[in-house]
Amino acid sequence: MHTDSLPRLAARTDRFVASAIRDLLQLAERPEVLSLAGGLPDGSMFPVDRLAVAAARATATTGRYGSAALQYGPTEGLEAFREWVAAGSLVHAALGPVDEYIVTTGSQQGLDLIARCLVDAGDTVVVEDPVYLGARQVFVAAGAQLVGVPVDVDGLDVDRLASRLHGGLRPRLVYTVPHFQNPTGATLHPRRRIELAALARRFGFVVVEDDPYVAIDFEGRRHDPIGALAPDHTVTLSSASKVLAPGLRVGWLRAPAWLHRTLVLAKQSVDLHTSGLDQLVALDVLRDDTFMAGHLATLRAVYAAKGHALHAALDGLFATRAPTGGMFLWGTATDDTSAMFEPAISAGVAYVPGRAFGVEIERSHQLRLSFATLTTDELEVAAARLRAAFLGAN
Amino acid sequence: MHTDSLPRLAARTDRFVASAIRDLLQLAERPEVLSLAGGLPDGSMFPVDRLAVAAARATATTGRYGSAALQYGPTEGLEAFREWVAAGSLVHAALGPVDEYIVTTGSQQGLDLIARCLVDAGDTVVVEDPVYLGARQVFVAAGAQLVGVPVDVDGLDVDRLASRLHGGLRPRLVYTVPHFQNPTGATLHPRRRIELAALARRFGFVVVEDDPYVAIDFEGRRHDPIGALAPDHTVTLSSASKVLAPGLRVGWLRAPAWLHRTLVLAKQSVDLHTSGLDQLVALDVLRDDTFMAGHLATLRAVYAAKGHALHAALDGLFATRAPTGGMFLWGTATDDTSAMFEPAISAGVAYVPGRAFGVEIERSHQLRLSFATLTTDELEVAAARLRAAFLGAN
Repeated sequence: MHTDSLPRLAARTDRFVASAIRDLLQLAERPEVLSLAGGLPDGSMFPVDRLAVAAARATATTGRYGSAALQYGPTEGLEAFREWVAAGSLVHAALGPVDEYIVTTGSQQGLDLIARCLVDAGDTVVVEDPVYLGARQVFVAAGAQLVGVPVDVDGLDVDRLASRLHGGLRPRLVYTVPHFQNPTGATLHPRRRIELAALARRFGFVVVEDDPYVAIDFEGRRHDPIGALAPDHTVTLSSASKVLAPGLRVGWLRAPAWLHRTLVLAKQSVDLHTSGLDQLVALDVLRDDTFMAGHLATLRAVYAAKGHALHAALDGLFATRAPTGGMFLWGTATDDTSAMFEPAISAGVAYVPGRAFGVEIERSHQLRLSFATLTTDELEVAAARLRAAFLGAN
Repeated sequence: MHTDSLPRLAARTDRFVASAIRDLLQLAERPEVLSLAGGLPDGSMFPVDRLAVAAARATATTGRYGSAALQYGPTEGLEAFREWVAAGSLVHAALGPVDEYIVTTGSQQGLDLIARCLVDAGDTVVVEDPVYLGARQVFVAAGAQLVGVPVDVDGLDVDRLASRLHGGLRPRLVYTVPHFQNPTGATLHPRRRIELAALARRFGFVVVEDDPYVAIDFEGRRHDPIGALAPDHTVTLSSASKVLAPGLRVGWLRAPAWLHRTLVLAKQSVDLHTSGLDQLVALDVLRDDTFMAGHLATLRAVYAAKGHALHAALDGLFATRAPTGGMFLWGTATDDTSAMFEPAISAGVAYVPGRAFGVEIERSHQLRLSFATLTTDELEVAAARLRAAFLGAN
């Protein structure tokens, strides 16, 4: 009797799918493997000393019912944090009044809240093809039917999207990473942003603008957010993960008024509020404009140097474009990159095969290489190992 | 064209319901109101100095890819945290091996993960009547049909549950707060725990054992967890919120092996992992046995003194039982407590009317009083104000 009831209980436990990256990372964690697979920011760039100062301040602050770091707080986030984000900064643009913002437990939570509030099973969600895996995981868990629209050098192919919309496609959401996309590194062209905003208004979908890399820009260019072009039809998300440290789990989003309250109620049900300690620590550093100007300049210079070093060291092994920001190179190989994964691991290097990111296009010969985690020297060794594995020259 | 599409988009934004408490708290936040309404722990009991030491250590720790506090980490939680919780402690019992535990972003997230993995729209979920509002919010958001089973002095009326099961009720989950229940303060009797465990095995449901108050025990008694009696059919949750500080958003759960992996995948989709900084800060303090023994002894003494002070000061105004642990008194008034809420606010005191917690029973004459937040002196003033409001003697 004891165990008879378990199979029935377990029957529904297949609704969540593992991120291919997380499973690959386990192989990549072998100490002898240099991993280009993960999306880990450079740990040596975490502003440890400045964060320690912030943590000391945050735990020392007290109030009537205990400090904002330690007591239960408002679901939508600490007022001071929302004021900072609504004012705009080096990290992101201002997009609306304070009461349109929510502090989230990383921007992953923001994606999940949007899916829970706007997507029912069977709804269509348009994603970029290839797609950021964390977003796909959320939309699949919500039961969405995913439609992939290809990404090219100028980001999401909005003309292709328009054709499908005119052909009858009716998505609830269109998901895009508009700067230095994961996995391709592409940035959505300003003209396409304007077109996408117009399509959202015309066809009544919500653009989910996931913009974590916007401040990791190697060439001093960033484009207007879609949220500024179609504010009633766009949710814009960003995060402290790439500019400070991801362990803090602090993100934020700006949503139009008609949606904001629902997202707050959903968040209340999900985790009551984001860590007060994390919010105060992140805020203390983020609103230190002098510190952030220097920190971001260094971060961009270091990531640019690494990205260019990897690109140069690959020396045509894969077809790649030089990176303009973010954390990733996207390459095309002459071999099947899934088949080459094991030989690469044997050669001591890991990457993510393109198939992991494909939606409607298989991407069998493509691969994603993260240049953020390793040192420049390690990136050069990793490139040599890739060459050995792919050219069989070891 | 611009706004035509918004009503269609907004149509589904009613799936989340506000917690009645959160809305009431807004009234209770007026500075002249002494609030017995919220569930805020006593901020003066947060171990601020010890947490500051922990925060300094956590931000100073570094590793190969940056510190565990600051870098992306494992979805199931830091290994060291899971080892601590699996070993058992003053805060909670040991219930299984390390790999059955997950660190959650507060135990509210644990409830949400369980609902997402096990509850489909239309499924039956049994809750205590009156019920903890945060749990109800989660199960309603999941589309569950709630069935309330009454709580008496010995906790959930398991005989009543058994009758309904024999009558054909087939819940997927039975939710209970087994020590010092929110809102009634009742503790589930050991005999009922054994019966509930047997029912779970026989009828194939999962017991959700939400145990945040177990360590806030005024009389040195705690009972075996249901998770020890029916480990394959129980998820046990607890949290650092009541013993350290809720702003940290650190909880944990132990789930049977057949369910654990699904919960981890769901959590990956929801927020990747719980804040590394929060995990390290909480762990540093929680595993300091010497500190925790003293801290918990003080916490229990302070909360017991406050609970008894409020109970004594009410002096029969409501029918209440002296508290044995936790944070709440549950009272029965001769008046309708919803009707009396406005007069009470006018008299400068707030509580939560019983109706907020009722599932199948209306609880129109009952009310919940939190003794955790205010000082003993304030509790006595609050009791006098209640007397003035309810007896019209002002």
